[in-house]
Amino acid sequence: MADWTARDLKKTPSSASTQQTFDDDRLQHAVSDRIAIEAVTPELDGGRFAVKRVVGDVLTIEADIFCDGHDKIDAGLRYRFEAEQDWSELPMQFLGNDRWRVELPLSRNGRYFYTIVAWRDLYATWRDEVGKKHDAGQPIPLELTEGRHLIEAAMRSDRGAVAERAELEAVLKTLDLAKTDADRLACLTAAPVQDLYAKAGPRTNVTGYSKVLPVWVDRKRAAFSAWYEMFPRSQSGDAERHGTFDDVIERLPYVRDLGFDVLYFPPIHPIGKTNRKGRNNSLTPGADDPGSPYAIGSEDGGHDAIHKELGTFAAFERLLQEAKAHGLEIALDFAIQCSPDHPWIKEHPEWFDWRPDGSIKFAENPPKKYEDIVNVHFYRDAFPSIWLALRDIVLFWAEKGVRIFRVDNPHTKPFPFWEWMIREVQDKYPDVIFLSEAFTRPAPMKRLAKLGFTQSYTYFTWRNSKQELIDYASELTKSAMREYFRPNFFVNTPDINPPYLQTSGRPGFQVRVLLAATLAGNYGIYNGVEICEARAVPGKEEYLDSEKYEIVAWDWDREGNIRADITLVNRLRHEHKALQQFTNLNFYNLWNDQILYYGKFTDDLSDFLLFAVNLDPHNAQGGNFEVPLWEFGLPDESDIGVEDLVTGQRFIWSGKIQHVLLDPAERPYAIWRLHPKGGK
Amino acid sequence: MADWTARDLKKTPSSASTQQTFDDDRLQHAVSDRIAIEAVTPELDGGRFAVKRVVGDVLTIEADIFCDGHDKIDAGLRYRFEAEQDWSELPMQFLGNDRWRVELPLSRNGRYFYTIVAWRDLYATWRDEVGKKHDAGQPIPLELTEGRHLIEAAMRSDRGAVAERAELEAVLKTLDLAKTDADRLACLTAAPVQDLYAKAGPRTNVTGYSKVLPVWVDRKRAAFSAWYEMFPRSQSGDAERHGTFDDVIERLPYVRDLGFDVLYFPPIHPIGKTNRKGRNNSLTPGADDPGSPYAIGSEDGGHDAIHKELGTFAAFERLLQEAKAHGLEIALDFAIQCSPDHPWIKEHPEWFDWRPDGSIKFAENPPKKYEDIVNVHFYRDAFPSIWLALRDIVLFWAEKGVRIFRVDNPHTKPFPFWEWMIREVQDKYPDVIFLSEAFTRPAPMKRLAKLGFTQSYTYFTWRNSKQELIDYASELTKSAMREYFRPNFFVNTPDINPPYLQTSGRPGFQVRVLLAATLAGNYGIYNGVEICEARAVPGKEEYLDSEKYEIVAWDWDREGNIRADITLVNRLRHEHKALQQFTNLNFYNLWNDQILYYGKFTDDLSDFLLFAVNLDPHNAQGGNFEVPLWEFGLPDESDIGVEDLVTGQRFIWSGKIQHVLLDPAERPYAIWRLHPKGGK
Repeated sequence: MADWTARDLKKTPSSASTQQTFDDDRLQHAVSDRIAIEAVTPELDGGRFAVKRVVGDVLTIEADIFCDGHDKIDAGLRYRFEAEQDWSELPMQFLGNDRWRVELPLSRNGRYFYTIVAWRDLYATWRDEVGKKHDAGQPIPLELTEGRHLIEAAMRSDRGAVAERAELEAVLKTLDLAKTDADRLACLTAAPVQDLYAKAGPRTNVTGYSKVLPVWVDRKRAAFSAWYEMFPRSQSGDAERHGTFDDVIERLPYVRDLGFDVLYFPPIHPIGKTNRKGRNNSLTPGADDPGSPYAIGSEDGGHDAIHKELGTFAAFERLLQEAKAHGLEIALDFAIQCSPDHPWIKEHPEWFDWRPDGSIKFAENPPKKYEDIVNVHFYRDAFPSIWLALRDIVLFWAEKGVRIFRVDNPHTKPFPFWEWMIREVQDKYPDVIFLSEAFTRPAPMKRLAKLGFTQSYTYFTWRNSKQELIDYASELTKSAMREYFRPNFFVNTPDINPPYLQTSGRPGFQVRVLLAATLAGNYGIYNGVEICEARAVPGKEEYLDSEKYEIVAWDWDREGNIRADITLVNRLRHEHKALQQFTNLNFYNLWNDQILYYGKFTDDLSDFLLFAVNLDPHNAQGGNFEVPLWEFGLPDESDIGVEDLVTGQRFIWSGKIQHVLLDPAERPYAIWRLHPKGGK
Repeated sequence: MADWTARDLKKTPSSASTQQTFDDDRLQHAVSDRIAIEAVTPELDGGRFAVKRVVGDVLTIEADIFCDGHDKIDAGLRYRFEAEQDWSELPMQFLGNDRWRVELPLSRNGRYFYTIVAWRDLYATWRDEVGKKHDAGQPIPLELTEGRHLIEAAMRSDRGAVAERAELEAVLKTLDLAKTDADRLACLTAAPVQDLYAKAGPRTNVTGYSKVLPVWVDRKRAAFSAWYEMFPRSQSGDAERHGTFDDVIERLPYVRDLGFDVLYFPPIHPIGKTNRKGRNNSLTPGADDPGSPYAIGSEDGGHDAIHKELGTFAAFERLLQEAKAHGLEIALDFAIQCSPDHPWIKEHPEWFDWRPDGSIKFAENPPKKYEDIVNVHFYRDAFPSIWLALRDIVLFWAEKGVRIFRVDNPHTKPFPFWEWMIREVQDKYPDVIFLSEAFTRPAPMKRLAKLGFTQSYTYFTWRNSKQELIDYASELTKSAMREYFRPNFFVNTPDINPPYLQTSGRPGFQVRVLLAATLAGNYGIYNGVEICEARAVPGKEEYLDSEKYEIVAWDWDREGNIRADITLVNRLRHEHKALQQFTNLNFYNLWNDQILYYGKFTDDLSDFLLFAVNLDPHNAQGGNFEVPLWEFGLPDESDIGVEDLVTGQRFIWSGKIQHVLLDPAERPYAIWRLHPKGGK
């Protein structure tokens, strides 16, 4: 590729009669680039960032590959797993109109690299041309001699093994025995000779794609997980008693029975006392108020310590084991800010900002002040020590067995820190998953996903209408974001009590759980959703009596709870492969703006699910809809078998247009599986 | 940027308590890249190729630029003309949603480079925060001290000149005299201080975009030209007498009066005798048949010689001068193939392919053979001598004063040769224009434009229906192609006698000329269009009695000629700035599938043209259409002044919906100019 900036142009006089010498980088560079390799997909920002897949995926790679003239070319994918030294090669297939494709199976958790190589295939060109001449009845003795020369060249090539060279020699002997030009042509173009040439024949004008592209392959949970968030200190069942890890262990069967995969805790570290927040985020805490777990660090320790009242490291490790035994994985919170009591402030004053009067600079968003926390900085005297320290915190918990980290507010820390840290951690533990908790503008949210975050929080909590949901889910599944941004649709968080749920009542909770669990591969709830908790600080998106500032004893059997809905949808997610993908989402026509109607199906159509969701939590809504018979290649008037996945009923839809009525008082959604073969 | 392939990963043990040293390329690399600079436009294939503009254009460059957190950032465009050593800088403007823009005026013919640099602006962040605190009534003495420190840091910075440092010192003296915090704040945030800081203040976390992007700036004719193609040997007016350059000189007023800018000749070199083609491409030439000028080379010379019967070099140079005096520029044909008599075959046998029996390999497309020409090859023993020789041929003619080359079949010669050769030529003669005559698949056509061809032949000759024209013109003007692919809409060529014109009669010629001249910035005709010549080899796209194989004496006054239409449209092209752009094309609604209706206007709306063209050459067609009042911000019921640019009539349209009737027997098109101010 031309290096536009560095080149020192040689300008020597020239004329038609006096040729320049070719001591010229530009010329040498140009000549090596004969075959055009363009429009490679997937490719993220020119290979600056890796696209993402999970173990077991097949990565489909395509490119425009073409040469001047009419000669035949061939192309291959070169790839290697990062730990491997040598490149492997897969043949690419020609699709037409200069497009080529190859499928690369991804079997390992880690980073693969891929690039493309193409070459002119003189033997294929020769076969094509001699065949046409022979078919047109033209004499071909010279062409046969040229063909023989090609085989001889393959024998001289260093691409073939000794055995292949011997086989080529045998071909020439057969050729010598042939009696007619037709026989000679057949001998020189036989399929086994073609295979032999592909292995051993020389490649002409070999041209490599200018870039080596990375794909990061996560374990499967990266793309398919259901999260449940709880505050461990609220798990004693008694608001007067601080919960412990052992209390959490008691709660594991509940979370498992709901069908979740990941159990996530806000920070479990010692909580600072200086400027501690009281109940409902007040500045006047009572003596017993436990404070926000996000004010990390006290005289008891910092990010590598455990809040004493939760238990010991032994208890934490016991919890990890028990969770695993229940099919659950523990996710921790990685929140970098410190309480004013964090040991780092004395040990590493160079990591913090100080005012001209010698006081520490608290977090603020002027004119608001957050005097219970201070932020570290990442440059000046804090580089590289804070980078290494923070990485080592993550490694510390990873060594304890934690493999999932929800990262608090990553958009307020330098992007390069995340890129570097995630890579450092995944070099050692490629199975670590990082969830980016950034709620900010689109560009930084995407950047965080590009630079390595495994999953990302989204705008889902603020997308409520049918068109908003279609637009947003389509952007996530159909735009370039699908290659690197894995949404995790949280229904709520301790910081987000969505306005829709504040007024929707129970049907709204059913709706939002169903949407989150079926629109995205990853989704989550913060506890309370299952019991339709919606009490808010008036006029705000915040929960009243938030667990962030006090210990809460929840009544999990509260009347009107939607545990059955959650259990159902989590079961369906595990039973149906169609729900274990994300980008296979399609919206279909249903003529009612209050009902969202969509489908997900596997490539082989063996698992085909349809969802109709009444977004209006207060009124029954009905509408005609199109059964996507065309996806099966069926005509509009076909019958198709249907299974109601909520009730288990089986029936037949006749024809493309059907009707549904969804009453929120009963159940605001329908889930169907199509059985085309059962339709007749 | 991460270098994924080259890095040798360092894996040293780590724990929370033991920090690694930071002898780590990855860490050092990461830290320098704090600000994200993404989605830069225009950028062609990651900067691998240059986008194209012409002298006088303003290049609008945009990017997503953002940093972590809430700090203020600023950004600048760095650019330089290739011949300059130093980079200049222009400030970028924030558009919102992380998007920034800058406009770079392009005043010189040649290559510019541009890239982006961004930095955190601590002073702007400070101004923002202290302002909010002050507005909220919070005390700000510490903040004022911090502000003073910022000014002091600017004084120590090496960015400012001595004078600026002195001015900053004066600011501090004024600050010391201020009596209140409000006064101090006003002093530290005054507009002149902001200007001073922008010039002299330090930039923090300066981050450069990873790529330097090229833009190639042509002279204006590259994007706006009208071509007329003729065979010089047919210009004597007598089919029995071989035309000369002096005959062409006699014809210059005719071409000038039609309004063309470029006069283009097929090859003017000696024509081979071996296997010469006869009339109508026959293999049995008569003794006097002149042969195809594309069979280049005889004992009289090759690509750097002139066919004797056309005249001498002196005559050619006289023609160049006379053309210039008539406002016309001569374009030559660069066709690389050789006749079997070309001197190169003996001088450079290594440039040609030879058969096993020692004979030369003729051009062929099996089973078809083209025995009047042989092709050179570009690799093996021909590299680099053929590359240099061919470049030197172009330089030879450029030195004679030729600045436009139409390149024959570039897609059958190696892409890297073109990229290298065009660059070599334009290094010396940046005003040289290359027109790519490739009629092949989309990918190679685009590639040739990317790698440097100034203009490109297109599929226009095969786009006849309304939808085809809308789709194709929209692809050219609205897709990424607009950045690098400059179409030249030829109505016909010696090789293409379009089926539409074979049956359309005179109206079809009027239609196709008008479309070519107004849809594209560059267009051309091969002579005969003005006299509606359409005689074809039956069932083929070829002209009967083609000038490629014989001398023709045309009757330019043939009845039914459309010289008036051509003269009109070429005059309008020169009078109207709206027609001198290409990408400003918009299609509007007219409810008749036989009438294409479109507009072009300048950014300032001062020149607003509308075209309605009846594509049906046999029947009158009428239809209602929308006057694009909305482009002026006018309501649907407005009056607007209209000028008929064919008749000169002025009138008023009242309201958005109007009607037009276009009778091909009279005139199949209408051209209007809108005068919104003349509408009342």
